[in-house]
Amino acid sequence: MSAEHGPATVLARRVRTGERRALAEAITVLEADHAEAGALAEALRPHLAGVPVVGFTGPPGAGKSTLVNALIALLRRGGRRVGVVAVDPSSPVSGGSILGDRIRMTAALDDDDVFVRSLASYGHLGGLSPAAARIIDAFDAAGFDIVLVETVGTGQNEIDVAAVADVGVVIVAPGLGDGIQAMKSGLLEIADVLVVNKADRAGSLETAQQLQAAISLRDGIGRRPAILQTVATSGRGIAELGDEIDRLVSEMMARMNGDARRLRRGRYIVERVAIAGIRKALSDENHAGAGEIIEDVLSGRCSPLEAARRLLARALPT
Amino acid sequence: MSAEHGPATVLARRVRTGERRALAEAITVLEADHAEAGALAEALRPHLAGVPVVGFTGPPGAGKSTLVNALIALLRRGGRRVGVVAVDPSSPVSGGSILGDRIRMTAALDDDDVFVRSLASYGHLGGLSPAAARIIDAFDAAGFDIVLVETVGTGQNEIDVAAVADVGVVIVAPGLGDGIQAMKSGLLEIADVLVVNKADRAGSLETAQQLQAAISLRDGIGRRPAILQTVATSGRGIAELGDEIDRLVSEMMARMNGDARRLRRGRYIVERVAIAGIRKALSDENHAGAGEIIEDVLSGRCSPLEAARRLLARALPT
Repeated sequence: MSAEHGPATVLARRVRTGERRALAEAITVLEADHAEAGALAEALRPHLAGVPVVGFTGPPGAGKSTLVNALIALLRRGGRRVGVVAVDPSSPVSGGSILGDRIRMTAALDDDDVFVRSLASYGHLGGLSPAAARIIDAFDAAGFDIVLVETVGTGQNEIDVAAVADVGVVIVAPGLGDGIQAMKSGLLEIADVLVVNKADRAGSLETAQQLQAAISLRDGIGRRPAILQTVATSGRGIAELGDEIDRLVSEMMARMNGDARRLRRGRYIVERVAIAGIRKALSDENHAGAGEIIEDVLSGRCSPLEAARRLLARALPT
Repeated sequence: MSAEHGPATVLARRVRTGERRALAEAITVLEADHAEAGALAEALRPHLAGVPVVGFTGPPGAGKSTLVNALIALLRRGGRRVGVVAVDPSSPVSGGSILGDRIRMTAALDDDDVFVRSLASYGHLGGLSPAAARIIDAFDAAGFDIVLVETVGTGQNEIDVAAVADVGVVIVAPGLGDGIQAMKSGLLEIADVLVVNKADRAGSLETAQQLQAAISLRDGIGRRPAILQTVATSGRGIAELGDEIDRLVSEMMARMNGDARRLRRGRYIVERVAIAGIRKALSDENHAGAGEIIEDVLSGRCSPLEAARRLLARALPT
């Protein structure tokens, strides 16, 4: 059997036709780190069109899920096919509570052109799994018009989701805590749009002003993110948010083609996992020889770069 | 000539006696990454007593140098011998403007028991050089009672100085900007003491309140840092700051012995340089095969950890 007619090629072709079940099968294959995933990823590659990826993140309680649901409805009214990757650190297997909620939500939309996939965090390292990039590729090959990546988690997941996306949306709710939390976690540094959701509550103006003050100090010459106010439950501000996202996606697509944006995603994920691997090797008291390697650096017998090589050589796969 | 009477051993013995010129020579040797530095570091090791290290960092304009000078004077009045490592990113060679200022300052103290060394940032990677850890060892072997590490730089230097120290002091001045800047740069996460210097200026209370609000959101169960107000130019609050530092140093020394604190410094520096090396290899468009390695991860042919190994194997020393 030639590669032309191998199972990966056959599945990739079925994905390309937009067959929903084929996409589900493909994503299940791509979630694993093994040869079958590699063969399928390769078979999907000729079908990639450079789908834009929008990330949604922010502290718990900001109303992310409701906001993303409202945006999905908006995008569907515009006739767009929407893929969603929901990164759920609490769910070791796909199909947790988010997926359940979303199935009800998509059922309410009575719509086959929304596909939601829940994805667990990456092994011991936490944060976004490399599989996320392959699932985005699957949505792309299946002809989806936009992919939304959302995390319900905090910490590394939040940063990752905003960083891998072409456009990163950070959502907070009124109150001193959220704005400061977003500052502290470094989210403001990578946000392309800031949303104060639940803007009908007290303190929303103050939160917007805090964020404004914080981003006015952002380093570098990059454009500062817009600050939008929304009430996801009533739909207030959702159209404006959709317009801003579209505008930023267009800008990003004009600046970088699909291959470059895909490479950027991959670069970020490799960097993140490599860093987590080094941190783990260094902090693990039981790591064979970590103390000795550090001593070699302290005494100048070994360069830090060589030390990093030695540490990673002994690090266990995660 | 046996190692017993080798030049490294002889110099180490002279350092041990507290001879000022020997210390200066030793630090010059230790600043380089070569075999001579390694031999000297090894010869110094039996003389290490576990000197406490206090780091000082914060945004430019906060009055760090004046504050550190006031603390040096306080420590000297207490009879303590003080080593200072001044990390100066703008100075490619040691002996920049800080050193000049400090020479005048130490001359004013008419004192041989303060030794100040300026140290450049680490190569292309920026941040604290591994040599800083070896210079701390030299102060330790020479019988100094405390080492202060101070940076005049921003960004990575700031984080590094607070992170490698046994006790990290973050200094800000009144005004909205400094508090937020400290939050954004992650300094609040690692601060053991927060100082609002220039506390005679308007807005110092507000800045302290901002910091208080921010640290109340600090993750984890760690003790929250004290917030102190000082006016370094008049000496107000300096004694209280000295007491708080002494208290925190005692706590840290009771918790970790000298070897453990030294290993902790080394671990941090190795981690930082390794991470910077990986980032550099990944962001370098000319890195041989970086794109190919990322593609291998995107397609699942290669694990991110294996990718990190391949990237570091080809990374250039810095």
